[in-house]
Amino acid sequence: MPTPTTKSPSRRPNHLRPVTIKRYPAASLSPASILIELGRTRVLCTASVETDLPPWLRKEVGPDGKPSRGWVTAEYAMLPGATPQRSKRGPNSRATEIQRLIARVLRAAVDLQQMPGLLITCDCDVLSADGGTRVASITGACVALAHALDWSKKQGLLPKTAKPFLGPVAAVSVGLVDGAPHLDLDYALDSRADVDLNVAMDHRGRLIEVQGTAEREPFTRKQLDQLLDLAATGIRRLMSAQRKLLRQR
Amino acid sequence: MPTPTTKSPSRRPNHLRPVTIKRYPAASLSPASILIELGRTRVLCTASVETDLPPWLRKEVGPDGKPSRGWVTAEYAMLPGATPQRSKRGPNSRATEIQRLIARVLRAAVDLQQMPGLLITCDCDVLSADGGTRVASITGACVALAHALDWSKKQGLLPKTAKPFLGPVAAVSVGLVDGAPHLDLDYALDSRADVDLNVAMDHRGRLIEVQGTAEREPFTRKQLDQLLDLAATGIRRLMSAQRKLLRQR
Amino acid sequence: MPTPTTKSPSRRPNHLRPVTIKRYPAASLSPASILIELGRTRVLCTASVETDLPPWLRKEVGPDGKPSRGWVTAEYAMLPGATPQRSKRGPNSRATEIQRLIARVLRAAVDLQQMPGLLITCDCDVLSADGGTRVASITGACVALAHALDWSKKQGLLPKTAKPFLGPVAAVSVGLVDGAPHLDLDYALDSRADVDLNVAMDHRGRLIEVQGTAEREPFTRKQLDQLLDLAATGIRRLMSAQRKLLRQR
Amino acid sequence: MPTPTTKSPSRRPNHLRPVTIKRYPAASLSPASILIELGRTRVLCTASVETDLPPWLRKEVGPDGKPSRGWVTAEYAMLPGATPQRSKRGPNSRATEIQRLIARVLRAAVDLQQMPGLLITCDCDVLSADGGTRVASITGACVALAHALDWSKKQGLLPKTAKPFLGPVAAVSVGLVDGAPHLDLDYALDSRADVDLNVAMDHRGRLIEVQGTAEREPFTRKQLDQLLDLAATGIRRLMSAQRKLLRQR
Amino acid sequence: MPTPTTKSPSRRPNHLRPVTIKRYPAASLSPASILIELGRTRVLCTASVETDLPPWLRKEVGPDGKPSRGWVTAEYAMLPGATPQRSKRGPNSRATEIQRLIARVLRAAVDLQQMPGLLITCDCDVLSADGGTRVASITGACVALAHALDWSKKQGLLPKTAKPFLGPVAAVSVGLVDGAPHLDLDYALDSRADVDLNVAMDHRGRLIEVQGTAEREPFTRKQLDQLLDLAATGIRRLMSAQRKLLRQR
Amino acid sequence: MPTPTTKSPSRRPNHLRPVTIKRYPAASLSPASILIELGRTRVLCTASVETDLPPWLRKEVGPDGKPSRGWVTAEYAMLPGATPQRSKRGPNSRATEIQRLIARVLRAAVDLQQMPGLLITCDCDVLSADGGTRVASITGACVALAHALDWSKKQGLLPKTAKPFLGPVAAVSVGLVDGAPHLDLDYALDSRADVDLNVAMDHRGRLIEVQGTAEREPFTRKQLDQLLDLAATGIRRLMSAQRKLLRQR
Repeated sequence: MPTPTTKSPSRRPNHLRPVTIKRYPAASLSPASILIELGRTRVLCTASVETDLPPWLRKEVGPDGKPSRGWVTAEYAMLPGATPQRSKRGPNSRATEIQRLIARVLRAAVDLQQMPGLLITCDCDVLSADGGTRVASITGACVALAHALDWSKKQGLLPKTAKPFLGPVAAVSVGLVDGAPHLDLDYALDSRADVDLNVAMDHRGRLIEVQGTAEREPFTRKQLDQLLDLAATGIRRLMSAQRKLLRQR
Repeated sequence: MPTPTTKSPSRRPNHLRPVTIKRYPAASLSPASILIELGRTRVLCTASVETDLPPWLRKEVGPDGKPSRGWVTAEYAMLPGATPQRSKRGPNSRATEIQRLIARVLRAAVDLQQMPGLLITCDCDVLSADGGTRVASITGACVALAHALDWSKKQGLLPKTAKPFLGPVAAVSVGLVDGAPHLDLDYALDSRADVDLNVAMDHRGRLIEVQGTAEREPFTRKQLDQLLDLAATGIRRLMSAQRKLLRQR
Repeated sequence: MPTPTTKSPSRRPNHLRPVTIKRYPAASLSPASILIELGRTRVLCTASVETDLPPWLRKEVGPDGKPSRGWVTAEYAMLPGATPQRSKRGPNSRATEIQRLIARVLRAAVDLQQMPGLLITCDCDVLSADGGTRVASITGACVALAHALDWSKKQGLLPKTAKPFLGPVAAVSVGLVDGAPHLDLDYALDSRADVDLNVAMDHRGRLIEVQGTAEREPFTRKQLDQLLDLAATGIRRLMSAQRKLLRQR
Repeated sequence: MPTPTTKSPSRRPNHLRPVTIKRYPAASLSPASILIELGRTRVLCTASVETDLPPWLRKEVGPDGKPSRGWVTAEYAMLPGATPQRSKRGPNSRATEIQRLIARVLRAAVDLQQMPGLLITCDCDVLSADGGTRVASITGACVALAHALDWSKKQGLLPKTAKPFLGPVAAVSVGLVDGAPHLDLDYALDSRADVDLNVAMDHRGRLIEVQGTAEREPFTRKQLDQLLDLAATGIRRLMSAQRKLLRQR
Repeated sequence: MPTPTTKSPSRRPNHLRPVTIKRYPAASLSPASILIELGRTRVLCTASVETDLPPWLRKEVGPDGKPSRGWVTAEYAMLPGATPQRSKRGPNSRATEIQRLIARVLRAAVDLQQMPGLLITCDCDVLSADGGTRVASITGACVALAHALDWSKKQGLLPKTAKPFLGPVAAVSVGLVDGAPHLDLDYALDSRADVDLNVAMDHRGRLIEVQGTAEREPFTRKQLDQLLDLAATGIRRLMSAQRKLLRQR
Repeated sequence: MPTPTTKSPSRRPNHLRPVTIKRYPAASLSPASILIELGRTRVLCTASVETDLPPWLRKEVGPDGKPSRGWVTAEYAMLPGATPQRSKRGPNSRATEIQRLIARVLRAAVDLQQMPGLLITCDCDVLSADGGTRVASITGACVALAHALDWSKKQGLLPKTAKPFLGPVAAVSVGLVDGAPHLDLDYALDSRADVDLNVAMDHRGRLIEVQGTAEREPFTRKQLDQLLDLAATGIRRLMSAQRKLLRQR
């Protein structure tokens, strides 16, 4: 299948690609459905609320016999047509690794004790993949998760006074391309990068996840430091895109 | 999860819901990616071209040892968040039945002998489900299929003179609601219908598939006739929506 | 493996193949085991009764907390040696589509409210396949289903006064062969047919399912009408074969 | 589901149940389809010939680059309605163990070097299960296997002079019931047995497979000897039932 | 991968390979973990206790509503690197057959009524495979099972007075190599053997399981007798190796 | 099942647990089988060589049509009895994530161009799990990998002059326990840790993988720095344990 012909406009190494985060579909059937676009990468993030906890959590009850906390999980998948070369449907090891990462980061955005008995599943489905799908998933799903928690209150599934959402979390990828740090790798940059680092932070700038991989050459502590600095810059900008939608709640 | 609160505006029984068919994403990575919206039902249809035929077809070769025809297949899936109640990922018997229907109808839109050696897979992924997802899939995927065939010519995978696309096919659902025929059932209507009939036609108004099911009460030949008449009306209108995009090729 | 050498005797286009429906084995371990032979097609249909409803139905209870209805489901499979070319065991998409059809039609033969708490599974195992296996399955399984309901009353699983069986349903295939309508397609005819139509009716001659597929050329409304007329003839004759065994109950 | 009500007529401990072995269906689509009835146990055994060897055997070629031998394998399954209590479809560990046994014994009936390049799969599908299904499968499938080898010669897949069939093999079950040896256990006897022994022999009375299991109490060498004597008697009688059909070849 | 180069020292046909049975790891996390070495064959056998019975056994309760018995099951697997040629992970039909054998024999070592409500799973993982892995598994797992039952008493899961362990069981393989009986076949011997017989006995020398297979030539009753005599010798010696560890309890 | 009762002896936060790396079994069937013990964590690491590349790599050939590089992959699994609470066999998402990490790090230890046409699979099977199984797997498997490459030269699968092994890689876990950095977390420490960081380095002290996760509280850049310093110390000590075995080659 085709190699994309429209070339990405040239971009500074410390700039994000254009980012938009919006409810989708506009008149959604779901209270918590977010489309995030990061350049040509598009991910539809939906957060669904169930009152049926996973089996291993059912035993954790308070003195009143009721669940003492809730849970947040995530599923990640690419539509087969999301890449120029069609990919097969169904679970694969890359998706498994990614959805475990997404779920861990999202759980850092909530106080599970403040959402007892609720299971929220964040589905991140990649409509179009041009690099950075896992970090776009985290950044978009965090907004869907906040919306789902609001909706749960409105439905009476949580008390009005509950404060399960601790604040936004977001993630970005950075890498060493031709020896120099570069923010927000698209597919073409990622293919050339020596190091690929995915970083997730909370709203206070603290680290939630750091996953750095030497794709070709191992890297030094100094290079890691430069990459982490660059990631912090990118995440701040992603959070300002999240905040618009979070404020509307 | 929520019951949709925005009520569909009232609609005449012989009217389609608003329909739009467009390329999506606009600046797509793929040459053949179509989003169809039928009311609140949204399906992303992508047609991918491969030159690797399914094993059972590899033996069908011409005197020159080359493949004597191509093949068109389809896959259908709902995103977990496409319905108010989250659905599980992965194959299920309903999806299997639907994707076999979609593929049979799409094959009626092409001359397989005119696309030797090509396998085209039409992926129909439901982003939002409010009834009629299988007929929307057929109607959208037919456009993606035409685009993929054009693209194959441009890439030199087919000779310029090949004419694999025979003309549009489209499908619509009709049903008996409170005893009266109704065109294009959304989820609320479908739940109340006694009979559910899916009809696919070619551009000359001939029948490709007729699938009628008595959900509650069996139906008479006369009722079947009324439903088929109504279906023909709907399909004509869907084809005019298809034609705009087909003409742009 | 072999091509069958015994040729089917020539048959008029509006005649069924020879049909027999009988209990099998004669001194059966099961109260509801039917062998149907339609020409060289043979299907063993067994109806098994369980008191364990499927999970999604367990919630439907009446004011007394007891199940308010029952359920009928079907499974369809071919023995590997049922065709000259051995087929693989295990679920496949064709079988999935067929067993969904069988189950829908069988449910039209019963009043589910009159069999609360019972799950009846109709297994249709094709011993020998020469075309028309799905319609033979429906026609045979309907008799097994009636027997299983009788047996349930004798076992005290249903009250003596319950009337869950509404009357026989049967199905037949018809097709356009060399442009002309033909009843009850065997494998050789089916391979040559332009259109394949499976029709299921109730004992009052009303339609339960209509599934028509253009295998090669799309078809007209007029052709559909001819095929439906022919199907009605065939179904009447199948029902008289069913009635002998149903009367013995 | 029901407990069988028709009681087996009383039978001496050293007698087989009534046994019949016949082609089924009479006018079969397949050249090698055998129905064996052992009391109320019925197994349909079909032997299918393919010229596609399993991957691990493809490397075994002679100096001419052609396969140096063939292979015989078996599959065993119960129809869901074969027992009063419906069983689930699909592979299970009991069936796996049984089909490995069947295949090993059948391979002792042939000279694999005399059938180079052929894969014969013997499908043993239990239509009705009342004990002894694995030994009935072996005894019936051996006849189907011989027929399939004859057919292969007629089709020119093997030279006329090839002698792949070495002679019949058959199997029987024996057990200790109430401390005494009993031949050919039906379900009721098997449930009461302390020891269950399945024995397969060749036409010269030599042992191919001996599988004895203490279901309750371990057993002595002397008891094993008594059981093996009894098994030899039963197998001789089964072989005379096989010979009628083998002679007709 | 490599063919083992270190040749087994020559051994008399009626001698076992060197056998050691010990707790492993020495300071184990588990109360019931045994490593058995039989020549170069090494199997790690762990017995785990759960109080959650398999579903089909949950209904078997006494008059007090409590479980009337327990259950013992087994799982067998080879590490991928246990053989010179790497094997794939995951269930396979050979492993299924073997673990069913192991479990049947182990259940003969216990009185299930004396361990009500307990499920003990004996995992037999082959670290290194040089023939005889199934009999080594039985012999090692029997010791782990005894340890797990002791531990269950100490934990208060069984009353101090319960006597669930009936005494050791052990198994050995024997075969006909070059026409002569040979005890305890390693891989090289097994590849040359005409008959392979696995025998399991209880501590009173009675037979629990006899599984004999003609790998090449069928065998006579007299040969079977010689093999059974030899097996009894080997099993007595294995039981003395078991007893050291059983006495330490 | 039991909670381990033997308490780990108290250990300084900047000390590793006792580590041993050795060939296992001593007289192994395999040329590349390593047992690593890190405290009570034990992992058996085997490296197997195949000359059959994965399908996606088969196309990468040089001008001579021969493979231009090789590949290293890894599989990770826990024996069911490796933990006090028995775990189920078979793939799971945690194992998938871990084996992808192991494989990426091991590939940094080799020059794939120097081992054209070889696929080396490193199986890491956890015999006993007390924390740190993934880093022990990396550290042990690296030695097995080096041995397998040596063996490949001896077998003539690689030219004597090839230098595929670049030098040892090793990994360690560090964490924040009660706010303070701690090296090499065992299970008890890991359960209490706020942050869990796995670090893999090459023999020049450069980073290959950094995977840090906030289990409870997000962490600061300063804390990350402290943890990375500590990890470097631990990895140096692990490499000296590796070197003994690597030198013996």
